[in-house]
Amino acid sequence: MSPSVIDPADLDRADPEGAIAAMVDRVSNWGRWGSDDVRGTMNFLDDAKRRDAARLIRTGASFSLSQRFDMDGPQQGWRRRTNPVHTMLDTGTDAVAGIQGFPHGLGGADDVIAMPLQCSTQWDGLGHIFDHGRAWNGRPADQVVTSLGDAVTGIETVADVITGRGVLLDVGRAIGPTNDAAVDSTAGELPDGFAITAEHLEATIAGQGSTSAVGRGDIVVVRTGRLSRARRDGWGDYAGGDAPGLSFTTADWLHDTEIAAIATDTWGFEVRPNEFDVAFQPLHQVVIPHLGLFIGEMWDLDALAEACAEDGAYDFFLTAAPLPITGAVGSPVNPVAVR
Amino acid sequence: MSPSVIDPADLDRADPEGAIAAMVDRVSNWGRWGSDDVRGTMNFLDDAKRRDAARLIRTGASFSLSQRFDMDGPQQGWRRRTNPVHTMLDTGTDAVAGIQGFPHGLGGADDVIAMPLQCSTQWDGLGHIFDHGRAWNGRPADQVVTSLGDAVTGIETVADVITGRGVLLDVGRAIGPTNDAAVDSTAGELPDGFAITAEHLEATIAGQGSTSAVGRGDIVVVRTGRLSRARRDGWGDYAGGDAPGLSFTTADWLHDTEIAAIATDTWGFEVRPNEFDVAFQPLHQVVIPHLGLFIGEMWDLDALAEACAEDGAYDFFLTAAPLPITGAVGSPVNPVAVR
Amino acid sequence: MSPSVIDPADLDRADPEGAIAAMVDRVSNWGRWGSDDVRGTMNFLDDAKRRDAARLIRTGASFSLSQRFDMDGPQQGWRRRTNPVHTMLDTGTDAVAGIQGFPHGLGGADDVIAMPLQCSTQWDGLGHIFDHGRAWNGRPADQVVTSLGDAVTGIETVADVITGRGVLLDVGRAIGPTNDAAVDSTAGELPDGFAITAEHLEATIAGQGSTSAVGRGDIVVVRTGRLSRARRDGWGDYAGGDAPGLSFTTADWLHDTEIAAIATDTWGFEVRPNEFDVAFQPLHQVVIPHLGLFIGEMWDLDALAEACAEDGAYDFFLTAAPLPITGAVGSPVNPVAVR
Amino acid sequence: MSPSVIDPADLDRADPEGAIAAMVDRVSNWGRWGSDDVRGTMNFLDDAKRRDAARLIRTGASFSLSQRFDMDGPQQGWRRRTNPVHTMLDTGTDAVAGIQGFPHGLGGADDVIAMPLQCSTQWDGLGHIFDHGRAWNGRPADQVVTSLGDAVTGIETVADVITGRGVLLDVGRAIGPTNDAAVDSTAGELPDGFAITAEHLEATIAGQGSTSAVGRGDIVVVRTGRLSRARRDGWGDYAGGDAPGLSFTTADWLHDTEIAAIATDTWGFEVRPNEFDVAFQPLHQVVIPHLGLFIGEMWDLDALAEACAEDGAYDFFLTAAPLPITGAVGSPVNPVAVR
Repeated sequence: MSPSVIDPADLDRADPEGAIAAMVDRVSNWGRWGSDDVRGTMNFLDDAKRRDAARLIRTGASFSLSQRFDMDGPQQGWRRRTNPVHTMLDTGTDAVAGIQGFPHGLGGADDVIAMPLQCSTQWDGLGHIFDHGRAWNGRPADQVVTSLGDAVTGIETVADVITGRGVLLDVGRAIGPTNDAAVDSTAGELPDGFAITAEHLEATIAGQGSTSAVGRGDIVVVRTGRLSRARRDGWGDYAGGDAPGLSFTTADWLHDTEIAAIATDTWGFEVRPNEFDVAFQPLHQVVIPHLGLFIGEMWDLDALAEACAEDGAYDFFLTAAPLPITGAVGSPVNPVAVR
Repeated sequence: MSPSVIDPADLDRADPEGAIAAMVDRVSNWGRWGSDDVRGTMNFLDDAKRRDAARLIRTGASFSLSQRFDMDGPQQGWRRRTNPVHTMLDTGTDAVAGIQGFPHGLGGADDVIAMPLQCSTQWDGLGHIFDHGRAWNGRPADQVVTSLGDAVTGIETVADVITGRGVLLDVGRAIGPTNDAAVDSTAGELPDGFAITAEHLEATIAGQGSTSAVGRGDIVVVRTGRLSRARRDGWGDYAGGDAPGLSFTTADWLHDTEIAAIATDTWGFEVRPNEFDVAFQPLHQVVIPHLGLFIGEMWDLDALAEACAEDGAYDFFLTAAPLPITGAVGSPVNPVAVR
Repeated sequence: MSPSVIDPADLDRADPEGAIAAMVDRVSNWGRWGSDDVRGTMNFLDDAKRRDAARLIRTGASFSLSQRFDMDGPQQGWRRRTNPVHTMLDTGTDAVAGIQGFPHGLGGADDVIAMPLQCSTQWDGLGHIFDHGRAWNGRPADQVVTSLGDAVTGIETVADVITGRGVLLDVGRAIGPTNDAAVDSTAGELPDGFAITAEHLEATIAGQGSTSAVGRGDIVVVRTGRLSRARRDGWGDYAGGDAPGLSFTTADWLHDTEIAAIATDTWGFEVRPNEFDVAFQPLHQVVIPHLGLFIGEMWDLDALAEACAEDGAYDFFLTAAPLPITGAVGSPVNPVAVR
Repeated sequence: MSPSVIDPADLDRADPEGAIAAMVDRVSNWGRWGSDDVRGTMNFLDDAKRRDAARLIRTGASFSLSQRFDMDGPQQGWRRRTNPVHTMLDTGTDAVAGIQGFPHGLGGADDVIAMPLQCSTQWDGLGHIFDHGRAWNGRPADQVVTSLGDAVTGIETVADVITGRGVLLDVGRAIGPTNDAAVDSTAGELPDGFAITAEHLEATIAGQGSTSAVGRGDIVVVRTGRLSRARRDGWGDYAGGDAPGLSFTTADWLHDTEIAAIATDTWGFEVRPNEFDVAFQPLHQVVIPHLGLFIGEMWDLDALAEACAEDGAYDFFLTAAPLPITGAVGSPVNPVAVR
């Protein structure tokens, strides 16, 4: 694996736009899979990868990597992102009260939900982020994502593909302890603002051993411990605030490894505050529209991490199938790892 | 496998309530996994089953068994079931218009959805149907499912379990041709009102060969061809109208096989019209609250069926993870089969 | 009042764009109330008009001019317009079941709604329609209405103003009978495609007598009988289909009368099919962005019309206050007439 | 008007249930308007009252008494009450981008909303609160309000009636200054926990003069200054927290005055904390199910109060028409006062 081409310390904090442009020059995948491509790095995840991944099912133990979807979630309304509102159309109390009108003693319950697609455990689709008006593969953003949704790269285009080899990089456990009193580094928690570099990722891989090798078509899940902390201390600004996360400089690594997707246990995947004076999610701006990379956020990796730490096997069979909501730029997901 | 204990022709069409009670006497699983159980037949799907299922990944080809979620779906408002309403919080046109206020050329799109949990491809949870005021395992329905949701058997309780061996029973292809002019039996389509019996299921298994054997912990997916027809002829009353489906008499088979779940390509799983003069989903009333069986509906099995027919292998590794919506009595799902 | 400047028969059916441009030349109100104006024709409705309107309260009898908001409405999903979905957060059945946890015998019920703002009885706001990318008062549409809503002319800007003199023009009753067998002209129903011209409006005024005089600041409500028909025959394509309505040629009348607003009992205000070969709501395109006129649709005028016909008084005190939804381009409304 | 029958100091803080029962004995209106009644105290608001109220329109100046409906509102998710989520179906940016497909230069914008009916300025309907399983007029709550909504007293039943004489009682201005440093009593703000008694109401009436006399069929609006404070200090726990409000002991006054409705500028109408050790909204429990009284909450009375204070006229013509959402137990409302 390639070391970071640039060091975070060398970033010009005053010039995110320049840094982004320079990075894009190195890592762009535009045109790599033809001008019609809508799947980006999911092209790396093919049948052969999936077939090989079957071997990773050792005991058959399964883990849901999803947080629950309910009103007790972390959202506070930023950009109209609320927690899911789940309401009932029919209930058991109604059934018992005898008001449902069904024959032969049948009773029923039904329900509805209203939620932002990014409210909890989710995938960012390729239409989620643009760079200077350009979406994945160089398309004009205003011809791709309108009020009618994403007419080209809607999440439904990857409905059948996101299943294969997953690899956990438990950076929180591998890197700690740090000296930050706010976090429990013995529990594998990185502090807010901790920028995970390619070196950190490689060190984690090395420390975890051979099952952690990362390569083409893999779905990498990075544990920072941020969710563990929220679980202990309360949500606070878990959704939208400071957090550990990937350094802007990992764009090279994300490109060179040819992974299919990456997910974290934080709301925003990359380190917050960002590594520039005035910036908002610059790594997103590189990897979604230019790499065509799928990013998962708010995944719950704690139970899986416990199991991996116990037996030292860090790869597994992972299915993280988005709901094929036509034209959606993201999707809630319940990723399931079997190991 | 057991033949049907009763013949559909022997059902007393005037007495669904009696038929249900008699059936329940034979097939109830109440107490089978203890009084605290919340997973019903998912108890049959254990790690060993999952480990064995890994062998079914032969080429690594993957199939989404989900319909798309959008306004062009089949719902017509029955019981407030609408099609999903997907709207954008931010768009590419906004990004290009320069009104988003993000720095360094970043643009973004976000979205929300409002939908009934039963609007499209979905799981019925154990709190979805009651029998005379009783929910799964004998619990009073009004203590289980209130306006706050299902406090006991919410779909989140099976977030990690629904992954294992899937078996396709393509009854449409196996049984046809029929003489019904409305359907294309050469395309494997059963007519509305066609009641699939245990004999039909067993004949399908026998005809398809050894990969179709059904047993403990399997997730059985039954193709009737009803969706193929809707795809060709338009939705019509696909969601709520007449359809082929399982006969009431299959409750014994569903019990005796010890399957973990069953899904169909129809809206309602069981045959419609039902096999009684005045009835509404009597098979649901037996298998959900009494067997604790998970039922999938509106699955799209056509592409998978093509592949199975081609190489004669009818089992596969299936992950059909519901969104863990706390307290939900069902969930949209994108089931993914890998074979 | 001015007669129509142009006759419907003189419209060039092949050139809606030319007709619109010519009409705009005659009737534009851009700049009339300054470049900052956000209220358009609501500027005509001032305190004095409101004070004078108080005299129209004769007996104190009040009429709701709103249809009900529920799933049994006319919407069929066109442009994602559904009927309102109203669900409960808490119910009386829950209260009786004793699961709410309130002290001293208190029980409660609460509810939520999800609905398009144009699903039923509503106002079109000034941000609802654009002409060649221009919104009311000449503003660029993409600087006014984005995914964040209408930043300039949101419906909240007229939260306090839409109360004053209402005048019913019961064109259905005044014009009939027609020879169209589909409608009950004895019940005051105009047939679909009937284009109401300025002459029809003036004839109705003349026929109804002096209480019907229309002038500056009035809110005119036009009954076509279309809703009466839907009530009798079922919704059919009431929301989106053919209908009687105002002729494109009435734009002059709508301008010259200096009314504050106009509403009809149809879904689309203007005649459908439109009076051009290929067109969609050309009168909207003139009167909303160029006149700054507020349009009400799907109002229920039948009970009011009965009362007016009985005593011959066609004007009344009308309050039709939109919900001040920030940035909305329309609003559901329950207009109340007191006479 | 009657003085309080009981003094707040005499309430047994340990026995809300007893206090409620005793109060109900004195004030119940069950059966007063027949067993079929669905309008409760709205029966006091008749045509004659409405006709007389027309005289209160002096200058024609109009005031919206509604807060705005948007994501910046006070809700924090308590009991799944969120702020309104307003999203666009079509936008001006889309229109300018040329992706809408309309002919002749037409562009359009449309929108949807999802909101709890109690999220902002609203009416409580008669199905909103129950006492020991009984709804208004003595009906069993579980036969009235189910998951299908309020089958009897849905808010649509008063769609046409809530228009008549309004009277502002600016208790905040009349009572202050208090010694509570947290509030600006010179701005007419009562502190949290301030229990407004019948004596306070009568003193306010006396102080404000003859236009404030309260009687049968009036809609009384009580200003506490709580919203003024939230406007200055931020929402805090405006929706659900402590507040000034009506004392439990005012139930007699609310009954004896025969008012049609009452509204406040607080979230909960009655004083918070409540005047018992363990209690939740005991005054609601008396006045909604037993008086059949309509309660308005979160009204914005500040601009109206300024105007009333200026000229000393405290009554006005008020229209506060709920959206006729079938079966709703409340409704958002934009009340409009004309004076």
